Amino acid sequence: MQKFIRIDMATLKHEITDVPEKYAGLGGRALTSSFVNDEVIPTCHALGKNNKIIFAPGLLSGTSAPNSGRMSVGAKSPLTGTIKESNTGGSSSQMLAKMGIKAFVIEGKPSDDKFYVIKLDMNGVTIEPAPAEILGGCGNYDAIRILGEKYGSHVGIAIIGPAGEHRLPSANISFKDPEGNIRSAGRGGLGAVLGSKNVKAIIIDETGASKVPVADPEAFAAASKVFAKALLDHPVAGQGLALYGTDVLVNIINEAGGLPANNFTGGRIDHNDNFSGETLNATITERGGDGKVSHGCHKGCVIRCSQWYPDKQGKYITSGFEYETIWGLGADAGIKDFDTIAYIDRAMDDVGVDSIEVAVAVATAMEGGLIPWGDGEKVLEIVKDMANPTPLARIIAGGTSIVGKVCGLYRVPVVKDQAIPAYDPRAIKGIGLTYATTTMGADHTAGYCISGNILKVGADIDPLKKEGQIEYARAMQIGTAAIDSTGMCLFVYFGIADSPAGYQALIDMINAQYGLSLTSDDVDELGKNVLRVERDFNKRAGFTNSHDRLPEFMEYEPIAPHNVVWDFSPEEIDEVMKF
Amino acid sequence: MQKFIRIDMATLKHEITDVPEKYAGLGGRALTSSFVNDEVIPTCHALGKNNKIIFAPGLLSGTSAPNSGRMSVGAKSPLTGTIKESNTGGSSSQMLAKMGIKAFVIEGKPSDDKFYVIKLDMNGVTIEPAPAEILGGCGNYDAIRILGEKYGSHVGIAIIGPAGEHRLPSANISFKDPEGNIRSAGRGGLGAVLGSKNVKAIIIDETGASKVPVADPEAFAAASKVFAKALLDHPVAGQGLALYGTDVLVNIINEAGGLPANNFTGGRIDHNDNFSGETLNATITERGGDGKVSHGCHKGCVIRCSQWYPDKQGKYITSGFEYETIWGLGADAGIKDFDTIAYIDRAMDDVGVDSIEVAVAVATAMEGGLIPWGDGEKVLEIVKDMANPTPLARIIAGGTSIVGKVCGLYRVPVVKDQAIPAYDPRAIKGIGLTYATTTMGADHTAGYCISGNILKVGADIDPLKKEGQIEYARAMQIGTAAIDSTGMCLFVYFGIADSPAGYQALIDMINAQYGLSLTSDDVDELGKNVLRVERDFNKRAGFTNSHDRLPEFMEYEPIAPHNVVWDFSPEEIDEVMKF
Repeated sequence: MQKFIRIDMATLKHEITDVPEKYAGLGGRALTSSFVNDEVIPTCHALGKNNKIIFAPGLLSGTSAPNSGRMSVGAKSPLTGTIKESNTGGSSSQMLAKMGIKAFVIEGKPSDDKFYVIKLDMNGVTIEPAPAEILGGCGNYDAIRILGEKYGSHVGIAIIGPAGEHRLPSANISFKDPEGNIRSAGRGGLGAVLGSKNVKAIIIDETGASKVPVADPEAFAAASKVFAKALLDHPVAGQGLALYGTDVLVNIINEAGGLPANNFTGGRIDHNDNFSGETLNATITERGGDGKVSHGCHKGCVIRCSQWYPDKQGKYITSGFEYETIWGLGADAGIKDFDTIAYIDRAMDDVGVDSIEVAVAVATAMEGGLIPWGDGEKVLEIVKDMANPTPLARIIAGGTSIVGKVCGLYRVPVVKDQAIPAYDPRAIKGIGLTYATTTMGADHTAGYCISGNILKVGADIDPLKKEGQIEYARAMQIGTAAIDSTGMCLFVYFGIADSPAGYQALIDMINAQYGLSLTSDDVDELGKNVLRVERDFNKRAGFTNSHDRLPEFMEYEPIAPHNVVWDFSPEEIDEVMKF
Repeated sequence: MQKFIRIDMATLKHEITDVPEKYAGLGGRALTSSFVNDEVIPTCHALGKNNKIIFAPGLLSGTSAPNSGRMSVGAKSPLTGTIKESNTGGSSSQMLAKMGIKAFVIEGKPSDDKFYVIKLDMNGVTIEPAPAEILGGCGNYDAIRILGEKYGSHVGIAIIGPAGEHRLPSANISFKDPEGNIRSAGRGGLGAVLGSKNVKAIIIDETGASKVPVADPEAFAAASKVFAKALLDHPVAGQGLALYGTDVLVNIINEAGGLPANNFTGGRIDHNDNFSGETLNATITERGGDGKVSHGCHKGCVIRCSQWYPDKQGKYITSGFEYETIWGLGADAGIKDFDTIAYIDRAMDDVGVDSIEVAVAVATAMEGGLIPWGDGEKVLEIVKDMANPTPLARIIAGGTSIVGKVCGLYRVPVVKDQAIPAYDPRAIKGIGLTYATTTMGADHTAGYCISGNILKVGADIDPLKKEGQIEYARAMQIGTAAIDSTGMCLFVYFGIADSPAGYQALIDMINAQYGLSLTSDDVDELGKNVLRVERDFNKRAGFTNSHDRLPEFMEYEPIAPHNVVWDFSPEEIDEVMKF
């Protein structure tokens, strides 16, 4: 029997119950969003006692299914005011699933300002004061090491950095990966929510847990094999991502003229070779040492898009070094030195902030005159300052919308106060519809239309034209909502989009695990229901179609080289979420 | 024939036309709000080229009617995102009315960053580069003096300070008063809108203007006499305000237990004598010199609530030294020295920021640890820094909501991102309904329920009880919307609320001026229409009933001494705007 855990930080008490019937068939995002919509007052203050934060492995997490180790974290977002599901790798999801924990919820708010560590193990829940040495400015790398020494190197860890302790709007939640490095539930400021509950870290100790039960092991194994083959056979999922990481996209998106540069004033740069995926691969290979081309964020990943980027002496600097971060710092903020970008990425992981929100905020602050254009050393200093935040560090960690406000700018690339990442909606129109309409604020992962617009995976749509984009953005968001509920990495989409057998294998695995007979229609309905639930929350929180809009400047400032503007009408945009 | 002027800052061209038929019977707020709702795209960026800002005298402005010299300024607010009417004294309203200018509109946006001065005179409109010496940090007092030297001491001036040049969210628009001092269209960041149009100042030269035409001068004079008597006979309008200024409220609201202290954690202070109205009067009287007890913000004011507060040597420090500012700095931020409060008030006028928004932001920043509690010298330094803003100055000038976000607070006293002023909604429930439901974000002047709740003028309602408050908050908002359209100072309400003859005289003056035969029902309908228009704009901008809510902490944190919480249900709140 799976368990559902509630921890009340007002009383420091907890409750372990059976899984409520209504949540029985749900996992990951479907579960977190349903719970938040059921129990969180939509108009509550995201940092007040009435917000609740929920952690849930996906439906397939903990099994031998490839790439199924993702975790969903849900709450009302302090950044956007919307419902939020933030999705991460690391070891914790698989551990929770093996421990039979369907989800755990943290609610309430202590009346003092002491920080706590919550430990989940097979004996239940323990809440203890956080060790002083991990508080007050200690970075996540050190804190994870210190907690590993205290609780054992085998435990899973979810932790907020100093930015989360300060409840800054871009604070994320970091998750220990298999090697003790950092993966993040990055977007939407959920680290600030955990910080508002005075929870510094959650320790997950799976000692004594058994395997996740599978109703039909043979069918599961067979489907898993087909599924793995579909991933590995695909040029993007099986090769490109492993060799070049997500950074492979620098050259691709630059070529497409959709790489926003200098705070979204241009769509192509000429220093792309400084930090392209090809350069990433060559640098890692050449420097050797700790460098790793191809690495997974959790056990069982066969895509292995993560890379370990070392310094000139071969010493590890950072991993999970994503295209969107590199784009933000390198193209949007014009920082030309790849090592500097890597150090900033590490610093963001270390203080615990969303590397997309902060990178875009940095570029916006450069337009606003707060930071000289391209000054990576200054940015590194500001990010490190977030550990004991100066006013400037607070502004940047406040996110792009706040930077825009305190600099009096109208060119502020956000939707619902969340920064627009890495793909210009004017030149890649499909992703613009996702940014505008997703329940999450601007989020490329909510319906990755780059796939059919640029990569030509799963569809072939002209990125510069409107034709077909509305239907595509709708379908991608529905499909993504379903995938986010399985515990699967979003990149499995590349493997299954062009492979009916691969897609069927994903459904077969779910059926084999739970003894079900779901069809693709059921999966589609699951995705739609997730969006319905999320939109219901947002509506009750005060969001309307008027918030489903891109920044106005994109409607009248054409972007080079294609000199295109954002030209979907409000009525057209509103079609996306009609289903 | 009255004129309607449009100035396009993109082309530096202007157009002078007859008044559009639909605006013929409107003035002040009714005109500005109708225009903004007609012509501004509700989802536009408030600092982008699609926002428009309109200045309009009231229906009675320029006549001999007492207290009729108020000006309305309207636009989409960069602070709240709502429609905004900000209301001010000074000389400009009467001058515009005499010049036959029904309203002037500034739209578009220059493509460069040069600032301009717009001059309106009987020959039309001139747009010229702003003198370098008033830009880049020059305070409003100096700038008004310099502009007076250039354009003549007789001209009216509307100007943004350095805060407006930087388009900071709390930037206001300052208006020269008859003595060359400063009155402000304070709330909602309209100075940032003017700054986004690159308009530093507007010069209004009435040379050659004639009197405002009055259809029936005799009837007008008779009504005006009755009206003036009603004002002067009333203990609040005719005596209290003149003697003690609006600061008379310190002791009254403190006694009522509704004086928010230390960022809304308490409702009463014991250092009220430091800066009460009685102390204000005694200090001015004792110090002499430039000090003035009783002064009007525009010619023809018989209430004379403004005071000139001098330093120990009798030298002028500030005027228009309002209760809400003194409360914010003195009680909410705990600054105990009255002179320091006066110097901060002057500094806020000088850099051009809303003294309510900034005072509340300061108190919130004290809770957030950015400024030591009660440290007036530090606050003075920060406000002066807004002229060439440091990051901390940007945060504070960003307003209370931004302070709350970058400090990770949930105790953030705002509605629709505008700071709650001076009257705690838990202990004075009527004003809470106004704060929640007004179209403007928290704004005491939008429906001053203090009147019937505390002062017992016009009504007698228990401030601690819910009974009667919904109907009262509705009626006060409707009545205020009408008064704000006449050019009348809001304080005339005190004179007419208890005097049917005074109220009738106000209507009679409008009828005598325009040859109309309006009834009190028509005035009521005018007020309702203003609110309908404003709510229509807000709805299309994305506002819903979910935004008509007070900060959540007020629902569960009781305030001393009455230990009361905010206990209106959402459904009850939503009744206010049903008419």
